[in-house]
Amino acid sequence: MTSKRITLAEAASRLLEMDNLTILCHRSPDGDTMGSGHALCRALRDMGKKARVACADPLPRKMAYMAAGMEELSFEEEHVVSVDVADIALLGSLREAYEGRVELAIDHHATHRDFAAELCVIPSFGSACEIVFDLLAEMGAPLTKEIADCLYTGIATDTGCFKYAAVTPLTHRKIAALMEAGADHTAICKVMFDTKSLACFKLESEALSALETHFGGALALIRVTREMMQLGGVTEEDLDSIAALPRKIEGVQIGITVKEREGEFKVSLRTEETADAAKICSMFGGGGHIRAAGCSFTEPYEVFMPKLLAACGDELRKAGIPVD
Amino acid sequence: MTSKRITLAEAASRLLEMDNLTILCHRSPDGDTMGSGHALCRALRDMGKKARVACADPLPRKMAYMAAGMEELSFEEEHVVSVDVADIALLGSLREAYEGRVELAIDHHATHRDFAAELCVIPSFGSACEIVFDLLAEMGAPLTKEIADCLYTGIATDTGCFKYAAVTPLTHRKIAALMEAGADHTAICKVMFDTKSLACFKLESEALSALETHFGGALALIRVTREMMQLGGVTEEDLDSIAALPRKIEGVQIGITVKEREGEFKVSLRTEETADAAKICSMFGGGGHIRAAGCSFTEPYEVFMPKLLAACGDELRKAGIPVD
Repeated sequence: MTSKRITLAEAASRLLEMDNLTILCHRSPDGDTMGSGHALCRALRDMGKKARVACADPLPRKMAYMAAGMEELSFEEEHVVSVDVADIALLGSLREAYEGRVELAIDHHATHRDFAAELCVIPSFGSACEIVFDLLAEMGAPLTKEIADCLYTGIATDTGCFKYAAVTPLTHRKIAALMEAGADHTAICKVMFDTKSLACFKLESEALSALETHFGGALALIRVTREMMQLGGVTEEDLDSIAALPRKIEGVQIGITVKEREGEFKVSLRTEETADAAKICSMFGGGGHIRAAGCSFTEPYEVFMPKLLAACGDELRKAGIPVD
Repeated sequence: MTSKRITLAEAASRLLEMDNLTILCHRSPDGDTMGSGHALCRALRDMGKKARVACADPLPRKMAYMAAGMEELSFEEEHVVSVDVADIALLGSLREAYEGRVELAIDHHATHRDFAAELCVIPSFGSACEIVFDLLAEMGAPLTKEIADCLYTGIATDTGCFKYAAVTPLTHRKIAALMEAGADHTAICKVMFDTKSLACFKLESEALSALETHFGGALALIRVTREMMQLGGVTEEDLDSIAALPRKIEGVQIGITVKEREGEFKVSLRTEETADAAKICSMFGGGGHIRAAGCSFTEPYEVFMPKLLAACGDELRKAGIPVD
């Protein structure tokens, strides 16, 4: 299906017309989808409407503050909107119940695949919370401290704490307004950026001790073994965070993480401007973005990896990086 | 000596009256002192004056962009100002040449110890670069891309990428203006926050693998051995970064790092709201701030540490944390 593109102002007026609505977030929820959902839900309730947030997975414990003080409302659902959901498949277990029923999708992903009747998408924004910020202003919803906490969380987490390219002067001006509305930036940043489980630290430590470099340090490789993944308390999210480590090493142009799974290996590749991650991975049946891509293989590690490394070496050589 | 407190407007008019000036930064320079120094120097030069930046240590390689394209000027020094220097001792090897000669100190440290004839200090600001931002506006200096890069660096690094309590809505509005002036936030953040040496990664990995927890996880302890410090390429800065790790672990109230030195052990203690780091360290002849303090000992590790741990246990017990 094709969604009808609508403007922020149109989306705001749609929301003002709705009541008794469910706001859908994506599965494996992050700060942006939960921040958008709870901010919008709170604003609609503050305006006297009935609304709820729905997600295939529970609100992560560290984001409990987003829902603090929000009562469970019982009402007959009349309308359905989604926030930060780029594809109907990302509704997870809620897909079956809601496919074909989403009236308005609010999203910032350039890769959005239409599933709603109407779509308000701003791909230049670094987070869905930035769109919700504008929507609430358009709707005339008061910016409470609780809403400000939700929106701050989504903007900060989806931009890597304001580091990513999608951050604009406007992003910082919105953050200023959210802080003026009472957003508790130190508490949010502490829990979202500066708190890790002991298991995650131990996993990183193990993974880094196994790190190897190639091509004079231009490529760094971490192999996450099944033993490492079986360390007590390690989550999928912890495993994902490992993939960002190799590229952070000074001089590294290509960072590779290989995770051993049941019967296969999953490769995550992150690159600097000098190498095209998607191109390299597509040579091995994978794909992705230019700076972050992936592929998988079932051959023995010792058979497959020399081929992948050779392809990386070629890419580095073309970029003029000395690799011999 | 006591410095005369002057306002931002007065400091701006002093700078406008000066020519042929040296701007002093503190030793072991960070992004804030170098950012302040180079931004001010560039602005003064853009206004037709002769100025230079002086520091006991060289500009760190990763901050080379701050000085890019700046010629070495030779001139007879007539005036001396300092930026981000909280104490004359922090001039390091330049102290002897400049003690008693600094006319204007520009600083944001609440702990500033007077050494200059006049002082413009704003302790509520999270960085000296925020003061320089206001000074340049007051002076009518154009905000060039080069100056914006310098100021962005100092504000971002001295606030832990906008996470610290000293960050205000005004901080974010200044950042918005700096980005509009051309500050390359992605390149700066990449080099300042997301690049570590391989040696630093290896050190962290070793240190974390030796991490132990006490009191049901409320206290985490890292012992940095002399062998770890002798890993090739490890710098003092890398060692300092270790001290921040234990407190980042979920549930940890007190994070301790003990570094083995020639003939003594150096303890760094970081705490959450539940414990007073300065109070604990003062019991062992040390001191510091409420959330970050230190002490040292020469007794054998096995003799001293049970005493320190007992004192920490007492503090946690008083805060109502179950420690048994």
